[in-house]
Amino acid sequence: MNKQFIRYTLGNILMILAGLMLLPLIVSVIYQESWVNIASFLGTSLGTFIIGFALLRTKLHRRTFYASEGFAIVSLSWISISFFSAIPFVLSQQIPSFVDAFFEMASGFTTTGASILIDVEALSHSMLFWRSFTHFVGGMGVLVFALAILPKAESSSVHIMKAEMTGPTFGKLVSRLSSTARILYIIYFTFMMITLICLYLAGVPFFEAMLLAFGTAGTGGFGVLNGSIAPYDSFTVEMILSIGMIVFSINFNLFYLVFIHHAKRVLKSEELRWFLAIIAVGVLLIAMNLISTSYGVVNAFRDSFFTVASIISTTGYSTALFDHWPLFSQLILILLMFVGGMAGSTAGGLKVSRVLLLVKIAWAEIKQTIRPNRVVAIQYEGRRIDSKLANTVLSYLVVYILIFIVAVLVVSLETPNLLSSFSAVAATFNNIGPGLGIVGPSQNFAHFSPFIKIILSFIMIMGRLEIFPMLILFSPNTWLKRY
Amino acid sequence: MNKQFIRYTLGNILMILAGLMLLPLIVSVIYQESWVNIASFLGTSLGTFIIGFALLRTKLHRRTFYASEGFAIVSLSWISISFFSAIPFVLSQQIPSFVDAFFEMASGFTTTGASILIDVEALSHSMLFWRSFTHFVGGMGVLVFALAILPKAESSSVHIMKAEMTGPTFGKLVSRLSSTARILYIIYFTFMMITLICLYLAGVPFFEAMLLAFGTAGTGGFGVLNGSIAPYDSFTVEMILSIGMIVFSINFNLFYLVFIHHAKRVLKSEELRWFLAIIAVGVLLIAMNLISTSYGVVNAFRDSFFTVASIISTTGYSTALFDHWPLFSQLILILLMFVGGMAGSTAGGLKVSRVLLLVKIAWAEIKQTIRPNRVVAIQYEGRRIDSKLANTVLSYLVVYILIFIVAVLVVSLETPNLLSSFSAVAATFNNIGPGLGIVGPSQNFAHFSPFIKIILSFIMIMGRLEIFPMLILFSPNTWLKRY
Repeated sequence: MNKQFIRYTLGNILMILAGLMLLPLIVSVIYQESWVNIASFLGTSLGTFIIGFALLRTKLHRRTFYASEGFAIVSLSWISISFFSAIPFVLSQQIPSFVDAFFEMASGFTTTGASILIDVEALSHSMLFWRSFTHFVGGMGVLVFALAILPKAESSSVHIMKAEMTGPTFGKLVSRLSSTARILYIIYFTFMMITLICLYLAGVPFFEAMLLAFGTAGTGGFGVLNGSIAPYDSFTVEMILSIGMIVFSINFNLFYLVFIHHAKRVLKSEELRWFLAIIAVGVLLIAMNLISTSYGVVNAFRDSFFTVASIISTTGYSTALFDHWPLFSQLILILLMFVGGMAGSTAGGLKVSRVLLLVKIAWAEIKQTIRPNRVVAIQYEGRRIDSKLANTVLSYLVVYILIFIVAVLVVSLETPNLLSSFSAVAATFNNIGPGLGIVGPSQNFAHFSPFIKIILSFIMIMGRLEIFPMLILFSPNTWLKRY
Repeated sequence: MNKQFIRYTLGNILMILAGLMLLPLIVSVIYQESWVNIASFLGTSLGTFIIGFALLRTKLHRRTFYASEGFAIVSLSWISISFFSAIPFVLSQQIPSFVDAFFEMASGFTTTGASILIDVEALSHSMLFWRSFTHFVGGMGVLVFALAILPKAESSSVHIMKAEMTGPTFGKLVSRLSSTARILYIIYFTFMMITLICLYLAGVPFFEAMLLAFGTAGTGGFGVLNGSIAPYDSFTVEMILSIGMIVFSINFNLFYLVFIHHAKRVLKSEELRWFLAIIAVGVLLIAMNLISTSYGVVNAFRDSFFTVASIISTTGYSTALFDHWPLFSQLILILLMFVGGMAGSTAGGLKVSRVLLLVKIAWAEIKQTIRPNRVVAIQYEGRRIDSKLANTVLSYLVVYILIFIVAVLVVSLETPNLLSSFSAVAATFNNIGPGLGIVGPSQNFAHFSPFIKIILSFIMIMGRLEIFPMLILFSPNTWLKRY
């Protein structure tokens, strides 16, 4: 284990974090907040900077590292930034409990959007800004951000980017890794600004529009008002957010392809087609189910579209209290939670590509059973899937299920029914935010014990990093064995 | 598609079924039941015989067949015997609705034990006998039975046996297939008789002991009294049944090994060790959870042991009303439902061997991610698992999950909460019987609409035959394509 390199990377990340904390500091000055808030951010920023600087002073003998080290670094970075970012909330006493603040920040960076706050509106502007800004930072990846702004990225950094980017496969846009990171961040920033401007033009106050744009871009879902998006009661705002959430759940490589005039290849993307098809079917099934109850046709489609976009993009904004919808609709939502967005987007979940691959592999197996002597090939995005990738995707599912089961068992100790414990884990592991039952949109995660909150915080980080980096971080092998 | 061979096999099966129906006829004569019951069995037996005889009269040009044909034959046989066996209940008006009777018989043959009867005790002796006897017939397999008693089995019959036997791999005990079938049935019959005698010696009336022994041997779980096993209120009876249920969930090949003096190999069986370990952990977790409520220590262990044995063996007998246990215990039970018994036993579920293989494959994948350049081998039962078998087991899980999801969605239309719809499908797909919530041991499946009852009947058959035979039966390819 190249411990020096871990210290070096962590130092870099903490110094960047210290810099980012100056932004809420500015907000708190603009809104002339009390000196407590200003001091909280200034103090934490300074402290984080000093620790980061100290870590950077270690001598770096070897600049290359192995996949397992890359994975460990990424996990450690995510835990650390959640830890340090939580401090201002505790210092300012706006979230007195450190565990609560850690949960909120892990939820922010992982773009989950699950909250322990009962009254969001009670937070000051700077704290609200910091809370939603973590969505924006976490959406594209903290270390990808570092790669984008740091001068020279080593070739082994590909392990870091692999660990942070989502989906079963990983493709660089251009040959240089830091250029790929920069292109991704430019697309990301531009789309966020467009969302912000549209929301502002639709009548949302600038500060709120900015925070909602952060939440949409990162597919996070922290709201600004206690009723999430419902209080705006505006069809236009809902449509901007719905489309925004879907856009940010699309593989960013596709936008790059459009940008370099390869739009035809985008239209051929199997994953995109299926993603849109799943949304259409989901909206239709839920709308029909809602119409069969007391919903009017127009409202059924409006609420169904917004909620499906919010859930499948793993954002978690809410307009309707879907925890009061019929069981069938709730189960469709749970299914969409597991599907999630496309690979290479800011969304969570299993990812459409993984689900597609799983279904294709299973289908091939059925065909194989009918014709044992024929070779059945699996095609995906025009390429043939070999048995090694198939095995990796399938094994991911098994590991995913095993962790899911253990988490549900633990959470069940503090939940009254299966829907609540199941959806609490589904909503955090897939980085959505609100679940159903006692963690539904009309309630939140405040009532859990500190123990469960910490478990769920780690489940969120595990879900965001697609499990393996966290497993490797906590594997004794990683730390004991010398290479 | 070799339709002649399908007709030939189906004809054989129906004639055997017609013969078996003479047994409840004898019971009905012994207990001097009304002529309606006697006529019901006699009429159905005659009708089934005539149809079987007619089917047998087709000329058979080709005696070999393909795997897909073998699978289709098995599925068709299971649907047919459930259909014909249901007729006596309707004729005698003891179960007036045909859908209900079909559900009850599908539940019987698949050794599920899910019931639509609110008052079991209202059935006549002959009907009770017939109902429980289907467990005994279905436990080891209907076509395996045919193989065991019919004079000459073709070499292609291996496809039939593969389709009916459970587990991810299939091993013949001896070179001749019909001898294997006969050895299995001799072990099966002997153990059933031992259970019967033990129960009788423990004070259970002979008729009830016989029916309970059928249910234990097939790991079915149809009770004779309305309260299942609770009314006996006997520690001895509970222990006999618990041990019996566990014994019948053990791979029958292991008993054969003991019989031919290879007991050492039995002790080395990984699947057996894990099966017993899972039982021990399950009993302990539930007992501790129960003690933390209002249960006394002794009763907690007693109820926990019986229920765990009943659920993991997929039998479904009940002493405690576990639908009133805390959520954590209920979730452990749901997990055990999915694990099920060992491959090559009469139990349902995913099978211990499959779960073990899944965990091992996932574990290997984690190791592989940490050390990408090393070859990680998977060992099971002393043998190396190749990627082809790994792929088959993993794909089975995906197909299993997909069917499970669709079934839960459909059932959710008629259930009030997730626990009920989830466990209704878990309990039928894994051939257990009682679930939780509205299908818990204190309730049953009577309140579902005929549509859901038919869906669940097919889910039971699908679960018993491990999915693929049913998929192949309903695949248009199977019927359209000529070979």
